[in-house]
Amino acid sequence: MAEDGIWHGGDLATARALFPEAPEPWVDLSTGINPIPYPLPALPLSLWTRLPGADDEAALLAAARIAYRVPAHAGIVAAPGTQILIELLPRLAPAGPVVILGPTYAEHGHAWRKAGYAVSETAAPAEAAVTIVVVNPNNPDGRVLSQAELTSLAAHCATHSGLLVVDEAFADFTPEASIVADLPAGAIVLRSFGKTYGLAGLRLGFAIGAPDLIARLKAALGPWSVAGPALHVGAQALSDAAWLAETGAQRAHDAARLDGLLAPHGRIVGGTTLFRLLETPQAATLFARLGRHGIYVRRFQNALDRLRFGLPGDELSWSRLHAALSVDAP
Amino acid sequence: MAEDGIWHGGDLATARALFPEAPEPWVDLSTGINPIPYPLPALPLSLWTRLPGADDEAALLAAARIAYRVPAHAGIVAAPGTQILIELLPRLAPAGPVVILGPTYAEHGHAWRKAGYAVSETAAPAEAAVTIVVVNPNNPDGRVLSQAELTSLAAHCATHSGLLVVDEAFADFTPEASIVADLPAGAIVLRSFGKTYGLAGLRLGFAIGAPDLIARLKAALGPWSVAGPALHVGAQALSDAAWLAETGAQRAHDAARLDGLLAPHGRIVGGTTLFRLLETPQAATLFARLGRHGIYVRRFQNALDRLRFGLPGDELSWSRLHAALSVDAP
Repeated sequence: MAEDGIWHGGDLATARALFPEAPEPWVDLSTGINPIPYPLPALPLSLWTRLPGADDEAALLAAARIAYRVPAHAGIVAAPGTQILIELLPRLAPAGPVVILGPTYAEHGHAWRKAGYAVSETAAPAEAAVTIVVVNPNNPDGRVLSQAELTSLAAHCATHSGLLVVDEAFADFTPEASIVADLPAGAIVLRSFGKTYGLAGLRLGFAIGAPDLIARLKAALGPWSVAGPALHVGAQALSDAAWLAETGAQRAHDAARLDGLLAPHGRIVGGTTLFRLLETPQAATLFARLGRHGIYVRRFQNALDRLRFGLPGDELSWSRLHAALSVDAP
Repeated sequence: MAEDGIWHGGDLATARALFPEAPEPWVDLSTGINPIPYPLPALPLSLWTRLPGADDEAALLAAARIAYRVPAHAGIVAAPGTQILIELLPRLAPAGPVVILGPTYAEHGHAWRKAGYAVSETAAPAEAAVTIVVVNPNNPDGRVLSQAELTSLAAHCATHSGLLVVDEAFADFTPEASIVADLPAGAIVLRSFGKTYGLAGLRLGFAIGAPDLIARLKAALGPWSVAGPALHVGAQALSDAAWLAETGAQRAHDAARLDGLLAPHGRIVGGTTLFRLLETPQAATLFARLGRHGIYVRRFQNALDRLRFGLPGDELSWSRLHAALSVDAP
């Protein structure tokens, strides 16, 4: 559990503390990170030794503009992970109620509350909303809003001089779900690099929106916020459309395989290509059983009957998951 | 030149634009970055693929506490470079005049002005100052304030419920200049990793201060702000006191050698182990002559008669500098 009290996946120190007797190594299914990463290219030493250069940053942003289909009139800024952009977004919005379409990724609500905004998390945004936050596709249930719905939400925010935040952290494999190519006024879109490319430790994320909003984020970050190696790896990976297509097909196959394993244990209520959401009244028991087998999945403070499963990355992990889920497992 | 209009060193794209005919590769003496980096350790793939872990962050902070002699009662936070901490500092200070002991590193004044503070840059802080910023040792002239002077400035700020910011980016080789071990109330200290360890592209910096101030910086950064590889390399390098001692001696030798080369061309008015500051009425001519030889040094918008020279990193660079400085060079 993080210091801010939000449960996150991805930190095995927490798993080890919960299940000190579990066998090592852990199978970490607690995140939505692709378990088979983009192959790291050779990294010239100068990426480490020099301050990140303007030319490297320009190459990254050019690749990102093509990969995400950013219109020429929109701005884009790179940051050391999407998280810090989430922390900065409240600086861009006017005062007024913030509505988050939820349940969803908890860091959005946390950031707006820290900044002093009145935040409510609802299934449908209230009329009073000045700023609306949508994770699309949603984490953890995979819900996707249509372009028409998003455009309508953006128009609502624009009439209140507010902001529509669309977090597209899980849109890379479903580009038709992205609103970037037809970016409406008043919308700002977040894209994450680390999940799809399996390189979450690299720290790279983007914000896309009107040039004046993006300029304010850029000023808040200051120069050199993204590390040299991240600029280089990001530029190369985002230019590799063949890898993305092949990986998307492979992970979709894995997701279907995972559904097959989970089906006897509850109801799959959603997900994306990178994770599946299981609903079962036995969620707490199942979480503990998996933990004793050294398999870490994601539980939710606000939905104790749900567990999120990331994809196993190799056959040993698949077979350990299979064994732990089998009916006679202790 | 950066988009914000501040001249920085370290970006060879600027050098190439100024001197398109210069021979490659460039000798970049425009920064205060150690040209001989800490040897990169092997980096396990998991540092790239996983979200940066709480245990890796704890190991880094433990090493930093020892390296910087942080008292047990003080807090410390790691960030992806000191720059973003400079951008965040205005959130910690009350309203009221900000005085920066200058001339100094321009990003401090820039950040406070962006945040709406009235900023003045003076040689001695005025009585009206609520927040005072000191770069110590100073960049570019190497001026060092005594512990007594810093303690007195901190006391002044504390009586106004303000903040004393001490940027110790260049204190690693002169630990006796650091105020960290005797941290006065109301002081917050910045430490940079990339300069001393020659790994500026890694992005790693620290803030040290009262736990409540550090907690606010930590909240503003959010989780996972430092990349996995940076946590790992930083922890290893900051634990290596032998490397630091040997490197300090070698760079001091280099700095003396550089003074010898520069002496015929003006007056050395200051510097640190990692850079020297030359004053000469011929600064503009000398900058251009070096540029034509593919040697990039740092000039200053507010001191057109000064040039800052970083240390050459190999004998070829030394001999190219020597040739470019020789009296009959064109």
